[in-house]
Amino acid sequence: MSKSESKSHRKPALFWGWGNADEHLSDEENHLIENMVRLLLPQGAVELSPPQVDEFELPESRLGELPDALAEMVSTTPYDRLLHSYGKSYPDMARMYLREVPNAPDGVAFPRTEEDIAAIYRYAAEQGVAVIPFGGGTSVCGGVEADVGDHYNATLVVDMENFNRVLSVDPVSRRARIQAGIRGPDMEAALKPHGLTLRHYPQSFPFVTLGGMVATRAGGHFATVYTHIEDMVEATRTLTPSGLIETRDLPGSGAGPSADRLICGSEGTLGIITEATLRLQQRPQWRATASVIFQSFLQGAEAVRLIAQSGLFPSNCRLLDEQEVMVNRVANRPCAVLVLGFESADHEVSHWMERALEIAREQGGELKGEVQYNGGHGDQRASEAESWRNAFIRMPYWRNRVTAFGIVADTFETAVTWDRFPEFYRTIKREMEGAIAKISGHPFSFSCRFTHVYPDGPAPYFTFYMVGDTEGNLHNAIDKWKSIKQLSLQLLADHGATATHHHAVGRDHRFGYEQQTSPLYRQALAATKQCLDPDGLLNPGVLIDPVGKEVGIRGVFSGLKSPQSP
Amino acid sequence: MSKSESKSHRKPALFWGWGNADEHLSDEENHLIENMVRLLLPQGAVELSPPQVDEFELPESRLGELPDALAEMVSTTPYDRLLHSYGKSYPDMARMYLREVPNAPDGVAFPRTEEDIAAIYRYAAEQGVAVIPFGGGTSVCGGVEADVGDHYNATLVVDMENFNRVLSVDPVSRRARIQAGIRGPDMEAALKPHGLTLRHYPQSFPFVTLGGMVATRAGGHFATVYTHIEDMVEATRTLTPSGLIETRDLPGSGAGPSADRLICGSEGTLGIITEATLRLQQRPQWRATASVIFQSFLQGAEAVRLIAQSGLFPSNCRLLDEQEVMVNRVANRPCAVLVLGFESADHEVSHWMERALEIAREQGGELKGEVQYNGGHGDQRASEAESWRNAFIRMPYWRNRVTAFGIVADTFETAVTWDRFPEFYRTIKREMEGAIAKISGHPFSFSCRFTHVYPDGPAPYFTFYMVGDTEGNLHNAIDKWKSIKQLSLQLLADHGATATHHHAVGRDHRFGYEQQTSPLYRQALAATKQCLDPDGLLNPGVLIDPVGKEVGIRGVFSGLKSPQSP
Repeated sequence: MSKSESKSHRKPALFWGWGNADEHLSDEENHLIENMVRLLLPQGAVELSPPQVDEFELPESRLGELPDALAEMVSTTPYDRLLHSYGKSYPDMARMYLREVPNAPDGVAFPRTEEDIAAIYRYAAEQGVAVIPFGGGTSVCGGVEADVGDHYNATLVVDMENFNRVLSVDPVSRRARIQAGIRGPDMEAALKPHGLTLRHYPQSFPFVTLGGMVATRAGGHFATVYTHIEDMVEATRTLTPSGLIETRDLPGSGAGPSADRLICGSEGTLGIITEATLRLQQRPQWRATASVIFQSFLQGAEAVRLIAQSGLFPSNCRLLDEQEVMVNRVANRPCAVLVLGFESADHEVSHWMERALEIAREQGGELKGEVQYNGGHGDQRASEAESWRNAFIRMPYWRNRVTAFGIVADTFETAVTWDRFPEFYRTIKREMEGAIAKISGHPFSFSCRFTHVYPDGPAPYFTFYMVGDTEGNLHNAIDKWKSIKQLSLQLLADHGATATHHHAVGRDHRFGYEQQTSPLYRQALAATKQCLDPDGLLNPGVLIDPVGKEVGIRGVFSGLKSPQSP
Repeated sequence: MSKSESKSHRKPALFWGWGNADEHLSDEENHLIENMVRLLLPQGAVELSPPQVDEFELPESRLGELPDALAEMVSTTPYDRLLHSYGKSYPDMARMYLREVPNAPDGVAFPRTEEDIAAIYRYAAEQGVAVIPFGGGTSVCGGVEADVGDHYNATLVVDMENFNRVLSVDPVSRRARIQAGIRGPDMEAALKPHGLTLRHYPQSFPFVTLGGMVATRAGGHFATVYTHIEDMVEATRTLTPSGLIETRDLPGSGAGPSADRLICGSEGTLGIITEATLRLQQRPQWRATASVIFQSFLQGAEAVRLIAQSGLFPSNCRLLDEQEVMVNRVANRPCAVLVLGFESADHEVSHWMERALEIAREQGGELKGEVQYNGGHGDQRASEAESWRNAFIRMPYWRNRVTAFGIVADTFETAVTWDRFPEFYRTIKREMEGAIAKISGHPFSFSCRFTHVYPDGPAPYFTFYMVGDTEGNLHNAIDKWKSIKQLSLQLLADHGATATHHHAVGRDHRFGYEQQTSPLYRQALAATKQCLDPDGLLNPGVLIDPVGKEVGIRGVFSGLKSPQSP
């Protein structure tokens, strides 16, 4: 096969934005976006045209003549290189609109076997090539951009799309061994005939890969107990440049520090995850959903705290603040809304729901409408949950066009203990709204919801829309985004919150990550990397730097100083 | 203070066995033990006398003249050296009865501050002294024996008893920052006025320290969800020879591989844990306990599987096999008994209990007596639960005397997936009973229970009593114990079970640990250790060896070959 043809067998994706190339916004969506733009920019704004592959000037691939084994699996087409240049963060898409891809990889490999990956490692070590593992490419924190610094002769992305099979299913223990490159919907389709499901639906679900979720500690469907993918990971199989790390498929263990927990969150810096054994759920038969109105977000937060500490373990416990409610048209007056859900494959859940609602009422909550049951009471979701869910799924698609108008739409998310939360929320809201108003100079929106909740604290998720530029100059918008991002990371650090609850560190959150971790721990991680990846091939600059190859904080934050640099 | 005085301020412990020096078996217990001995040994057996400190010939301490800072905190009294020579495994006590302590530490340090620990590290690095962190000393896997090989000039145990304070309590987020040397009862006493509790009761609860539990991934009270101490660990503070690793107190995070999960299970090989922030519970107000009878253990196991997968999350779900039932006098005919418990600080739990009992009944279970409720229905526990619990707490005390008769009383525990469990259980029972019968040549007991259960598998816990020797020659008994231990580890490995679910690896389980972990992962762990403990001071030979200082499998297994030695 010639190098000028893509080696991908996936449905063609939109290389510059969210979704597949054949997915489009509906007329209604376009109408809503235009309304939103008018709201933020009554005077109008330049709309940039969607990027085309031939508008990009990519430097020639530095891979040169490849050995046969690699030539078979490596593509250097402009489309493949562009598609694998960025994740899906705001500055990623903005730079696409700018037709600027300073770190396009020199090629994209599509291995079919672990031997193929080993061959890639050998080649990369010999030639001084950085290797960037790539799953769904949905990173929103610079996790896949090949901005690797000056120590490498070239960059090669490894797309895991061919590792796409469910290898075995064990319905007795409710688990399955699955290859890491499988996408969310394909995995669920393969599990469905067994009555099983992972029920892990990040916003990126249609595109996300299992390996990507494991590598980044993705957050999923369940609001409590099983919040992160690592709660579902029973075992992993990871090929590192030094060899294989395979863990035993155990329901629990106390034998030494967990190897799985080293792999979860390694973000492609230690090895490429090729398989994972996952703990699954039976498909729920009973569901209950309710919406509870609170006068204020902090009043609702107190109810959520008590529900999170109750041991009722709701599957959904999403509290939306006043602004989130308005932006997503969940209610037509400013109030906080708690979308509460219980589900079970074993038992009817009304008892659980009733007690949770009792707690909510004791804190001043007011049930909106009725509890929606299925399994006996019909199969409707509460309309608030449904409107919110639709908005959630379509949001990244909307951003494709919103960005063209110079509007910055972005999110950041964290977790913080309950005792700190009220002060944290007030400060974040005050400081961020103040900063956005000042930086943007236009109307904006800044809202918050809880995605997951723990007995010891919530995981708040903030969304903002602001005008970055009205003249089609997205450099300007990116600079504004950077200021906002840096401020948010600093505020999270100052309040003892985490730089990320489930979006991972990548390059964009290293500034915050370095404030919340002991330098000695990062050194220990670097020592681990040195053992597993002695040539420092893998994803250099993400999370930590390879020993002897300082990358520092790069990507869109190039030049930012680490708060704890030695 | 003179070196000839102990520096400990704890209540004097029994240096050779379980408990404090002033705790004694009751007349009834002595009577029961004598009955048991008669049952196993109708012809009678020599009873060895309890060891006395002055019966031991300890070599002179090799610590020599200590710098002032250390002299202040180090004890070299025979009592302190003996008390810190062993954990509480069978061979530990047997060797005490033999008056054999080949690896008595050269001294015991009682630091009061992290600066003291840093001074110990400096001294140890200068003098080539191995450092053995010591919490409650309740290890049953050779986790604290100073059998460190030939690379060290001396050995120094670090007893953390002075790190015994609860530093702060946050009732809003239900958590507390606590020093690592605190013992279970002291911690609970300090939390009680706040209405909070850790509710983590390993069998060793009266003696165990928080740091010891964290370092060994201890298993606790809850049968589901919060089974291991790491589920309750919100943050840790660990002083390594290279400096401090402190993690942020977060309810959840997705920022890189979890540093806490590196510390949990590190078994004193990477650093000394000085503090942890723990997630706590409110004291339960509602409890329900029931006992369900099954015809067979495997029938009960199927019910437990479905309960574990139901999302009901019982706090207790202990299934006893026929032998366990008989030995602990839980019932007077051979049957399996499921002791099922629910508890809550938030709500009445009858609904949960009723559904769990429904599942049990569908699998052929029969409720024995009535469900015992408190919080309205009185405060009684099911008598089966109570008998079992008393036996559980007193068992280690009984072993003090049982061992004197040459009887080997020991346990091993594991976790395995449900699909493997029936075959696993049958094989373990057949092979172990066969081996014990052959090796011992006397009546014996071999029983099993589940301590914790997961949706994907149970944690079975095996207990055996066998005659090791009748003539007072416990070398003979130790050899028999070794054969049994090695066989059990091999069987666990062969069936894809873990070498330990919550007893840790130590020295005794390294043989099994090395079969279940990738050699490359252990290399990565060694690289981490090299970074944190470059002189290889800490607990050499436990879990892994320090780089350049091969210790190998030692302790009571000295000479055993690692299955994956290079």
